[in-house]
Amino acid sequence: MRFCPLCGGPIERRIPAGDTRTRDCCGRCGHVHYVNPRPVVGTIPVWRDQVLLCRRAIEPRYGKWTLPAGFMEIGESTAQGAQRETLEEAGARVRLGPLFTMLDVPHVEQVHIFFLAELLDLNFAPGAESLEARLFREPEIPWEELAFRTVATTLQLYFADLRAGRFGIHTREILPATSGER
Amino acid sequence: MRFCPLCGGPIERRIPAGDTRTRDCCGRCGHVHYVNPRPVVGTIPVWRDQVLLCRRAIEPRYGKWTLPAGFMEIGESTAQGAQRETLEEAGARVRLGPLFTMLDVPHVEQVHIFFLAELLDLNFAPGAESLEARLFREPEIPWEELAFRTVATTLQLYFADLRAGRFGIHTREILPATSGER
Repeated sequence: MRFCPLCGGPIERRIPAGDTRTRDCCGRCGHVHYVNPRPVVGTIPVWRDQVLLCRRAIEPRYGKWTLPAGFMEIGESTAQGAQRETLEEAGARVRLGPLFTMLDVPHVEQVHIFFLAELLDLNFAPGAESLEARLFREPEIPWEELAFRTVATTLQLYFADLRAGRFGIHTREILPATSGER
Repeated sequence: MRFCPLCGGPIERRIPAGDTRTRDCCGRCGHVHYVNPRPVVGTIPVWRDQVLLCRRAIEPRYGKWTLPAGFMEIGESTAQGAQRETLEEAGARVRLGPLFTMLDVPHVEQVHIFFLAELLDLNFAPGAESLEARLFREPEIPWEELAFRTVATTLQLYFADLRAGRFGIHTREILPATSGER
């Protein structure tokens, strides 16, 4: 941030009075511009023993597989956002189930929130941001070709809970990877 | 937003190519400025049969009681943010427990996330944003003087689970109130 979005004045990086952190402050109007982590919301869309994944048509991770998920929008709930992303990315209509994972990803300033979901029909189709959408049984999951570690973690937890016969709600912190992983 | 934070150019409200929503777009450099809901993180700090509340020294809801909570900061996890807010607002050190509530508040563009927590000692003290910090048994909770409905909901669920002898993880959507409530 270089210019104040409110008045166009020059931005200064400084600790405002009464604060403990450096913020973007306007040198003209004095407004403090806070920045916060962003929620990413998605689903684990299930049909019998299969899970629906999408192959990304956008960066980052073009060509890699993901659960349908994306940035939460203003005016919606986490559940509404998760359903919207499932429709947009996979053309899939779901009955939303309970919260399943809440995964902190502090190094990319995000919190990833996934809900269990049941596909209502098989009339799914890749959206504009997906190359493909298809169902995978557990042995078919392309573990080495998944786009994000939050997706891999959520799928691992899903199949573990499926075997255990009981679905929990799981929280984890995803630490920075040494490779180019996200 | 009236000016582009990157180049200082004039902001236009329009739907970018390939998008479905109106965004703040720069008329000069073309950058699209996305806005997303913000996570608020906090704790239910417990000592035996008592819960620690803070009386707010800031707006909104000056003088009303709240669980320690605040906006999640860049670079931290939800759990770290909840512990930090508990220290900042109530001067309280806690052993953090599991996630307890995740409450959507779409009309104020927030998601409120509360963790169970055990006070490590009784050396708490109100921080700069609090007038008082004190312990309440269930019959003493100032239900009519609570700052936010997410706090009331979280406390109701806490005491219900305490009576049931089993703590779950609860998700709810908080709808707009007709009064001045938040």
